[in-house]
Amino acid sequence: MRHLLLAATALFALAPAAAQDKKTDKSAALNSILDQGMNHSEVMVTAQYMADVIGPRLTNSPAMRLAEGWTQSQFSRWGLRNVHKEGFEFGRGWSIERSSVRMLTPRPIQLTAIPIAWTPGTSGPLTAPVIVAPMKEEKDFAKWRGKLSGKIVMLTLPGTGDEPDEAPFRRLSGDDLSKLDRFQQPTYDPAATDRRLKRLDYAQKLDAFLKSEGAVAYATMSYRDGKLVSGEGYLFGKGETPALPGVQIAAEDYRRLARLAKVGPAPTLEINSDVRFDDSDTQAYNIIAEIPGTDPKAGYVMAGAHLDSWVAGDGAADNGAGSAMIMEAARILAAAGVRPRRTIRFALWVGEEQGILGSMAYVEQHLATRGGAGDGAGGKGMQRYYGFSNRWPVTPLPGYKDLTAYFNIDNGSGKLRGLYAERNPAAVPILREWLAPFAAMGANTVALRPTGGTDHVFLQQIGIQGFQFIQDPLDYESRIHHSSIDTFDHLKAEDMRQGSTILASVLLSAANADQALPRPPLPTQPAVTDPFAYSDDDD
Amino acid sequence: MRHLLLAATALFALAPAAAQDKKTDKSAALNSILDQGMNHSEVMVTAQYMADVIGPRLTNSPAMRLAEGWTQSQFSRWGLRNVHKEGFEFGRGWSIERSSVRMLTPRPIQLTAIPIAWTPGTSGPLTAPVIVAPMKEEKDFAKWRGKLSGKIVMLTLPGTGDEPDEAPFRRLSGDDLSKLDRFQQPTYDPAATDRRLKRLDYAQKLDAFLKSEGAVAYATMSYRDGKLVSGEGYLFGKGETPALPGVQIAAEDYRRLARLAKVGPAPTLEINSDVRFDDSDTQAYNIIAEIPGTDPKAGYVMAGAHLDSWVAGDGAADNGAGSAMIMEAARILAAAGVRPRRTIRFALWVGEEQGILGSMAYVEQHLATRGGAGDGAGGKGMQRYYGFSNRWPVTPLPGYKDLTAYFNIDNGSGKLRGLYAERNPAAVPILREWLAPFAAMGANTVALRPTGGTDHVFLQQIGIQGFQFIQDPLDYESRIHHSSIDTFDHLKAEDMRQGSTILASVLLSAANADQALPRPPLPTQPAVTDPFAYSDDDD
Repeated sequence: MRHLLLAATALFALAPAAAQDKKTDKSAALNSILDQGMNHSEVMVTAQYMADVIGPRLTNSPAMRLAEGWTQSQFSRWGLRNVHKEGFEFGRGWSIERSSVRMLTPRPIQLTAIPIAWTPGTSGPLTAPVIVAPMKEEKDFAKWRGKLSGKIVMLTLPGTGDEPDEAPFRRLSGDDLSKLDRFQQPTYDPAATDRRLKRLDYAQKLDAFLKSEGAVAYATMSYRDGKLVSGEGYLFGKGETPALPGVQIAAEDYRRLARLAKVGPAPTLEINSDVRFDDSDTQAYNIIAEIPGTDPKAGYVMAGAHLDSWVAGDGAADNGAGSAMIMEAARILAAAGVRPRRTIRFALWVGEEQGILGSMAYVEQHLATRGGAGDGAGGKGMQRYYGFSNRWPVTPLPGYKDLTAYFNIDNGSGKLRGLYAERNPAAVPILREWLAPFAAMGANTVALRPTGGTDHVFLQQIGIQGFQFIQDPLDYESRIHHSSIDTFDHLKAEDMRQGSTILASVLLSAANADQALPRPPLPTQPAVTDPFAYSDDDD
Repeated sequence: MRHLLLAATALFALAPAAAQDKKTDKSAALNSILDQGMNHSEVMVTAQYMADVIGPRLTNSPAMRLAEGWTQSQFSRWGLRNVHKEGFEFGRGWSIERSSVRMLTPRPIQLTAIPIAWTPGTSGPLTAPVIVAPMKEEKDFAKWRGKLSGKIVMLTLPGTGDEPDEAPFRRLSGDDLSKLDRFQQPTYDPAATDRRLKRLDYAQKLDAFLKSEGAVAYATMSYRDGKLVSGEGYLFGKGETPALPGVQIAAEDYRRLARLAKVGPAPTLEINSDVRFDDSDTQAYNIIAEIPGTDPKAGYVMAGAHLDSWVAGDGAADNGAGSAMIMEAARILAAAGVRPRRTIRFALWVGEEQGILGSMAYVEQHLATRGGAGDGAGGKGMQRYYGFSNRWPVTPLPGYKDLTAYFNIDNGSGKLRGLYAERNPAAVPILREWLAPFAAMGANTVALRPTGGTDHVFLQQIGIQGFQFIQDPLDYESRIHHSSIDTFDHLKAEDMRQGSTILASVLLSAANADQALPRPPLPTQPAVTDPFAYSDDDD
């Protein structure tokens, strides 16, 4: 503390007048941001509307269409500019109107279950006995041929419950944070991608097999216990829709069915799945809004979070929280009246849960293309996700150099604890400087560790500096993520206020930085990390 | 270890022939018990049938009637004697055939909810808007008069979610165990009982108020979060049945409704509660079975667990586990062919969840009566529970002296770690001796602490030595107890085998003990612990 004060005094003493003015402006802006973010916060109002009123936002569902319109109108209301949506081809809209799964025999009991996304409905109650027929790859089909007719097929091996012997809710300690700061060498194995791509059509092969065998529906088991169900289902493309209705059943209920089927007559289920398809528009839309920069040649910085969610809960922590923090940072900066050098762009992505498709579309529309003709570009559904990273070369588009930094939020609703520098040591001192004012809010860690699985990865892969915020984990991974309790009441208002405020400040720092962040070289196809490795999947 | 060996050698050297034979018999019996309990266990088969096939066993429900018959036939099949049921007046049978609660506006969503026990059904779908009208005592009615007509009344103040920052699943450490060994002074405050009795009619007053105001149904919030619902509802007596259907809604769903109602038009719910009453027999039945003793004058020892459960889950840990351990101990002892000096009686209690009514009935039928005429004896429902402890004098029945020790199991499905000596230091060395063979199974703690809330308390209150087993907590209190995940898959087979084996051995030791346990004096009305205290409830 003392050290910082001395440093500040020294800086004042030595700074020339222009720098002095700039510093005063910077302080004034920071104070305005803090005032807006802490004393006039709207982040929880935004998050509540998104989670409670709009509800879960499966890409292209009617709720997502509402969210597309509402988020744009909020951005406009707050004075953001260039508010618009950017479409890309996605697939079908799908939503649940009503759903019920009951065991009828040996005794009546209401089960906890959810229709699997993009599977068809049952056209009224469907009643049939179950059969436990665990299958996870094509070669498992042989064992069950001739045995599935008229049955509801239970596909998951039931297994046993877990022992929750760690605290579900936690915050990062100083020790936890220091462990994040490690360089992790990248790996590259295009053969693994090829294997994944080969397996992608399993869901369709399974559906065709079940249909040809005369099965009437299928059921999977939730991967969590505690009666939580979660989102699954990836056949969202037009023409991909499975023939059979599918439901995911809570682990306790699924395992009870499996035990009953093991020791006595197979239980009978009644499935009533009233789901709706909407093909009126197969495009999905990213939402964009801006605070224009004063220097048209300086490019832009961007922050994004995915607006889409699964449907088991309300998409509150994943990722209504991130979306609300993005929106609130935009509101804060607009209300604070900042005039940044670079444009600050805000993005709400869609299709993230189906393969990070929204930010991928942004890359392809604005930043760079990957690969040549005939090597998977424009493939549909999950194939696009797995194929994208493996297409070479990366060819920059005219807008490539304009985006100087991207910040992503997608680790639940916990407060920000710093930034992942994502294997980029040159960025570390600059990120540290931007986070410095927030040490007392616990948010000044910069950790070299890379993170994956969300909307900064495809930007990174083309050489754009995409960073993700470190967040307190709370009970996100342990019970909220993708689950039926991803609801607003598990968000913490203090965390959300802290996050939006810091995000706003970091964005402003990045937009006003004298120099853009040092950019890595344009990525070219790396060497295979272990060319001598064999895989279990080799066949 | 060495010390024990020396002691054993010394005993051999000094023991006369008869004692030597007795010791050999004891070892042979212990080995047979271990062999049956560990190598030929049926405890999980018993528990699975009870939880999965029969399901939850609300007292007097059709499932409980099945359980009454099935448990008796199992006892008989295993060679137990004097297998029979003992009835007492209880109330109505009630069961759920089908149940669904949906939010219709502002968007369709299936809620997690359960009908409140012994409330009437809805006669098809009931659709109405909600009103959040928190009430918990009669004086709260005034605030809501004239506002409830046509509404589904949400009675619980929503509050906020918890932060589960402790591990839900745990076992007792040595340190935990040592902390249990403390004498806790008893307290006595008959005024508190009077106040409780006065409040008991609140549920009926609330129902009458809601009905008179034209409300159409009511909803409460589950006291756990994580989408768990649990059992509640105590108006089980004939003539007590409420007019309005009631549902308990999962916390996440309830709080969402409350928030929506706060910020916009009240959401509309559709409740479809198809429940069934059965008044064909208003008696509830304890199940009794025995291994006869060789000395008709030596009395009997008894172990019990309650067979009844709530209906949100399957009553697996509460208390299918305890019931299965009691049944398995009976099977083990029968299969081991033991011929104990005292009779060993096994009891499966009912009505425990409605006020420990089954074991109370046993006390009144076999052991002692409490109080004189006109002071609450034979009162109905929960009044009996609160009134019983406060009726004086205790008048022993002819069978009073026959019961020399009672052992209760009702702390979930965790393995046994020892016995609560329940404020009885004179019993400690004897209990220690009986548990000594099980040190290596982690079950040799004897802790002076008293425990309450289950079927040994009314025996203790009349001066019978009732003990409860210490058990590893697992995730019983944290998430299983009374909840919708009280299912078989949360039981641990190794724990259940250990428990049944040790219970069998302890029972045999108690039945064969040279002397009965030292019995406390006949309880008389104690001094009021703090006659100078005022209470918030004084009015």
